[in-house]
This record gives sequence, C-alpha cells and structure tokens, in this order.
Amino acid sequence: MQKQERISLDRIAQITWEAFKNEELQKGENAWVFYDIDFLQKRIERLKAAFPANTLHAIAMKANPLTDILNWMTALDVGAEVASLPELKMALDAGYTPNKIVFDSPCKTVDEIAFALQKGIRLNADSFEELHRIDELLKIGNYEQPPSLGLRINPQTGTGQITSTSVAGQVSKFGEPLKDFREKIIDAYLQYNWLNAIHVHIGSQGCPPDMLVKGIGDVVALADEINEALERNKMPNRIQTFDMGGGLPVTYHFNDSGNPIEDYQKQLQEALPQLFDGRYQLITEFGRHIHANAAWALSRVEYVKEVNGQAILVNHLGADFMLRECYNPNDWHHEISLVDAKGNLKTSNQTTNYHIAGPLCFAGDFISRGVKLPKVETGDYLIIHDVGAYTLGMWSRYNSRVEPRVITDSNSKNKI
Amino acid sequence: MQKQERISLDRIAQITWEAFKNEELQKGENAWVFYDIDFLQKRIERLKAAFPANTLHAIAMKANPLTDILNWMTALDVGAEVASLPELKMALDAGYTPNKIVFDSPCKTVDEIAFALQKGIRLNADSFEELHRIDELLKIGNYEQPPSLGLRINPQTGTGQITSTSVAGQVSKFGEPLKDFREKIIDAYLQYNWLNAIHVHIGSQGCPPDMLVKGIGDVVALADEINEALERNKMPNRIQTFDMGGGLPVTYHFNDSGNPIEDYQKQLQEALPQLFDGRYQLITEFGRHIHANAAWALSRVEYVKEVNGQAILVNHLGADFMLRECYNPNDWHHEISLVDAKGNLKTSNQTTNYHIAGPLCFAGDFISRGVKLPKVETGDYLIIHDVGAYTLGMWSRYNSRVEPRVITDSNSKNKI
Repeated sequence: MQKQERISLDRIAQITWEAFKNEELQKGENAWVFYDIDFLQKRIERLKAAFPANTLHAIAMKANPLTDILNWMTALDVGAEVASLPELKMALDAGYTPNKIVFDSPCKTVDEIAFALQKGIRLNADSFEELHRIDELLKIGNYEQPPSLGLRINPQTGTGQITSTSVAGQVSKFGEPLKDFREKIIDAYLQYNWLNAIHVHIGSQGCPPDMLVKGIGDVVALADEINEALERNKMPNRIQTFDMGGGLPVTYHFNDSGNPIEDYQKQLQEALPQLFDGRYQLITEFGRHIHANAAWALSRVEYVKEVNGQAILVNHLGADFMLRECYNPNDWHHEISLVDAKGNLKTSNQTTNYHIAGPLCFAGDFISRGVKLPKVETGDYLIIHDVGAYTLGMWSRYNSRVEPRVITDSNSKNKI
Repeated sequence: MQKQERISLDRIAQITWEAFKNEELQKGENAWVFYDIDFLQKRIERLKAAFPANTLHAIAMKANPLTDILNWMTALDVGAEVASLPELKMALDAGYTPNKIVFDSPCKTVDEIAFALQKGIRLNADSFEELHRIDELLKIGNYEQPPSLGLRINPQTGTGQITSTSVAGQVSKFGEPLKDFREKIIDAYLQYNWLNAIHVHIGSQGCPPDMLVKGIGDVVALADEINEALERNKMPNRIQTFDMGGGLPVTYHFNDSGNPIEDYQKQLQEALPQLFDGRYQLITEFGRHIHANAAWALSRVEYVKEVNGQAILVNHLGADFMLRECYNPNDWHHEISLVDAKGNLKTSNQTTNYHIAGPLCFAGDFISRGVKLPKVETGDYLIIHDVGAYTLGMWSRYNSRVEPRVITDSNSKNKI
C-alpha cells in the first residue's frame, strides 16, 4: 500500500535556507510562495498511474491558475478543468488542446457556450436550461460535436464537514438534483441526441472518500439506466464519458497521512467495477489534491506584541492570501513552522501560544490562533505549510497589497 | 435634525433604465457597478459641515480604492487614510498632498516608515515596537517632522456585533491596549518628544455610536492626562492632533434610516466638549460611511433553477465581489431589486423566496438566501444596493473572472 507522500520539513527547511543563502529573497519583498515542482510532478504521475491510461485528468484550474505552472503541466499530458471564460482562455493560451479542456460553470452565457462549441471544448451543462441553450446553438451553428457534452448531476448525497465546499446537499446551486428529477434527467438524454457524457461532483475538502464513492455510485447507476433507455428507444447516443468531479480530501496536518490516490481508486474499483471495465472513458477533476501540499509560504514576522496576556505576531500574509482561513477559521488549518532571520529552522520544546495576524487593516485578519511556536522575534520568518491550492488563485486585493512572489525550487530538474 | 439621505429606488431605477436606453451596457459584459458621484459629494459635504473646518477627513482608501474616484475626491479638500505602501503610493499618485495622508498599518516595514517620513506623511504607529523604529529612523535620517506622528490606542471598549470588524476587544491586533498599558503609553509620550498625535479606532460596521463615543472618550481622557504629564515634565511636545478612526455604522436596509453624521457629531460634542474647544486638531477616517450607499450593482440573471423545492437564481456577482456576504452571511445584508431585460423595474405583491447564487465554482457562493422577489426570469437583472464600499476594493480573483465595469451617472454634474 502506498503512503501519501508529503514534502518533509527537512526538505522545506533546506530549500528555504538555500533561498536565503542564494539571496533569492530580494529587499523590499516580505513574503514568498515556494512551489516544489518535482513534488507536483510526482502527485500527477501517481494520479495517472492509479487510473486507466485513457483517463483524462482535467486538473481544476481554480485551485492554482499560475500560468507558468499551467504551461508546465501541459507536458505531463493532463487536461484542465475550467469554470469561467477567462480560465478557458488561459487553458488555450497555455497550450492545452481543446479535447483536454473541460468547461464547467454554473453561469455560462450563450456567448461563452458558443465560444466553447466553436473551439471543440468538452462541456458539462449545469442545468436543463443550459442543455436547451446548447441545443439551440447546435441547431444554428456549424459546430463539430465536441468530444464530450454532459449534464452535471447533484446526487444529493449530503453535505460534508465543510458546508461551503460541499456541493451535493439537498439544495445546491450545482447540477440537476438526482432525487428530485431522475425521470426528467433520463428524458433529457432521450431528447438531446448529442448528450454523450455525464458529470457528477460531490464536493472537495470535507467529503470523505466513502461519501464520494457513494455519490459517484448513484450516478453510475443512473448512467447505466440512461444507456439502457437510449438503447430501448433506439437512440443513437450513449453516455460514453463519465466525469467524476470532486476532490479527495487533502491533509493539512503533519500527523495525518491523508488519502493516497491509490486507496481511493481501489475503493472506487471495488465498489463500482463497471467504472473500470472500459464502458466509460473517465474524467477526473482533482485540484486541491494535486496542488495543496506542493507549496509553502515564507513570510517575515514584522511585529510581535502582547495584548491582555496574549502574544500576537503580525506577518505579511493574511486574509488576502488565506481568505477562507481568516473568514471561516473553524474549517481550515495549516501547520506553521518558524525560521530565524538567517534562514535556520527554529525548534524548541518550550513553546508559546501565538495568534498569527496578517498585515491587513481588518480585525478578522488572523490566519491562525493559538499556534504553539518557539519564542518568536521580529525578523523571524513563518513557514506556512500546504498553501499550494486556493491561495494565490483567490487572492483578495484588500488594502491593494502586492502578492507574494512565487519561487520554484532551484535544485529541481523541472525548470519553470 | 437632518435625515440620513439615501439614493431613492426611483433614482436608481431611472439611472439604470437610462443605461439600457443609452446602450451603456455592452455586449459581453454581465455585471456593472454604478456610482452616484453627486451622492458621494453630498456625503462628503455633510461630513465636512458637521465637523470643525480644520478637521482633516482622511477617507479610508481600503473602502474604495477606485483611482478615478480617488482623483476626483482630491478636489473636495479631503484626505486619504492609507493602510499599505501601495495605498500610500496611490494616494500620492492621485494628488493628495502629504499633509492630507494618514498612514495606518499594523505591519509597516522599516523601509515603508522611512518612505513615509521622507515624504512628510502623517503616521500612526501601531505599537511600542513601531515607535522605536520611527525613533531610530528620525535619529539617522534627515527628515522634517511630519505634521503628525501618533500612537494607536486600543481602548478595549469591547467588540461590536460583527467580530471580524471590531478592533477594540480585549485582544485585538491593533494598537496598544489602554487598560493593560496605560502607564507604558504615557511613558512613550514622555520618551519620544516627536510624538504629537494620538489615534483611536474602535471598529467599523457593528459598533453603535454609543460605543464609539465611549472609546473615543477614554482616549480623550488619556490624551489630556498625557499632555498634563508632558507639561509637568517640561517636555516640548504635546498631543495636538486627535485622530478618531473608526466608522459610523451604515444602513443596508431600506426601512432603517441609519446614522446621520450630524447626530453622531452632536453626540460626540455633548459627551466630549474638549474635542471641539480647539485644543486638538481632529482627524476622521470614515470609509464605509462615505462610500457604501453611493453605489449599486447591476447583474444579469443567467439561470433560474429549482432544487428540492427551493428557487435558486445564478447571477454574475458572487464571492469575488461580495466576499464577506458569502463567507459570513449572518453578518451582512443587502437589499436586492429586480429589473427586466429591457431595464424596467419589476414589482409585484406576489413574491417568491430566492437563493441568490453567484457565478463561481464554489458551493458557498451565495450572496443572499431567501430573498423575496417578484417572479424572476432568465435575462432579468438584479440591482444589488449599497455596494460602494468593501466590494471592488477587496475583489477576490476566484476563477480568474473579470471585474464588473464601473459606470458613473451620465446625468451628473460631476464628470469622472
């Protein structure tokens, strides 16, 4: 059984220290994000090895839209899951071929759908209303059929531990609800003979693998039923592509091994063998699983103060970079380490509880509270672990501050 | 007694309708923000009329950093409160003179402080540690004394109704706490003979006027006490500038008249006459009070769906534009109106409860839930009221979407 790999603290400390030594941390800068590209490549290679070779791994761009990394990933033969017109254009600009791009969005305009059809992009409709729009466009436009056109199903499996990232509750804005509209969904596949794919997405962080497998299973059963109905009714189309969106929960804790992708695939295969017998081409849409553990941030401690007996340190990353952590602190966690002003890791058995404030003029700007750290001095640096996903990609421009510069490991064989 | 003015729904409907008629809403755009510049001017003029003529109204840039509006405001003889180096540079670029700029930030670097001192910007230190930095710089640099150098005091008045915007709790990251460190604060003014200002900030939205007056009162008493100590110790410096940061709660409800600035000033003057007897030059730092009610957004309804009996509409503004509303929905409210595809206001006694989803691929992306609206059809437009503050200024680039274009009233005498 494969373990979920993590970047070791030793390796992080080593790369960070080299950045100090090589003077990569320029004057005037206060925070940086380090991506370990070798690690990223390993995550992608393990994902590819775990699933059938013809699976399209459309990596969710919203998790990490850094253009250099997007460009670099095209060489790994993965795809891109995009959820807005700018993301779609960024994928094309990065060099993804249209048949490797999956366009999901609950808010596609007619113009955006027409653009995607013209380019031959894979498309998942979010609703019956969008299916109707696609049908109208296919009637008037001179489009070739894209590799896959699907409908997103909400299996109504239930919400996970994090409400804001669960999409399969009884009432979600995404997809058409399976329990409410099973017959209507089947009718749509009978009505639109260009429908040849189906899409399900249960949620990302907060939904354990069991819940993911359950939701996917409900939609596999639906797909089989739809294909039988299509055959019975002598329709030409079949569901050929099964797009299982949704992420695998990522660990943000040192002492939690997380969910290896191989275990998840095995669980899927045991529960749902028909997903792997060749009847469906598979699409996955991992994002957080790929990117989150691949990066850490380094940020200078600008001030240390004490208020009402509570030690507070002020650093240069806050609700701009770690928005969800500041606004919904109970849902999110990051491990934090400490480095001195020369780049050496500080460790000690004697620790103090620190509230870690960001730089913003906003009271809720705390990325974490009650963090045990060795004695912190002004001029030390925080290492904030596992910041590779949903950080720079959802940067909030509060106080018009400048984003941290991204550094990739200079020792890597992957130059980007 | 003056009423708190609001932009009437009639005026908003009229300006919106004219935008449709004049084809200001270009193809390919899906959402817009309308600023009523005449209204903005009235808010500022009332603020200026309510306070002594020599008061510096340093308007909090973070509430609305749109450069055209920043430029336009310089002509109204107000100042800018800035809380980051980019904001400081934007204020200088917009044409604010250094003596009208107040630099507050809990995270000022040595270089940033040096830059501010060189330019002659007013500065409020956030901590004793920052006072020490300023002192070191003043010793080595050939700076002229800026018009005011102060220390931010946390009066520890208590948190208001919205924890994330309250800065005067027992444990806040901002300022030095009055109850904990009263003697140490007085000593700082005795130690640093360039300290000639004091700064207090209780919080913004969520802190009622009584709480603001109480917190300011505690710091006025401190300022008086410090000046007596300075005189007794034959020190040359005195607190001459009293900077009362913190906002006046803004109303986001049609049926709530809000807090007129004149009432607030009257309450301050009655409770704290010494603030208005000329011994202190006053600085205010309103932001939300100035901007919030001056703008509304217009956004197309792209889809309407029903899930488990709940009507959901999908529009083009979500957690990118209204971040706090989506992440902390219980703290925030906006009135929402409906316009048809030709720009006419839709009203009806028969309403439905809608959940209003944004365009983002993120389950928590609901700007409001259970909103009573007349029957909504795809192609209608939402008017989201009172979005002038803390919206575009904290834009989150989730899904790499494009910001709504800003439109100013074409009938206004204020051309910007």
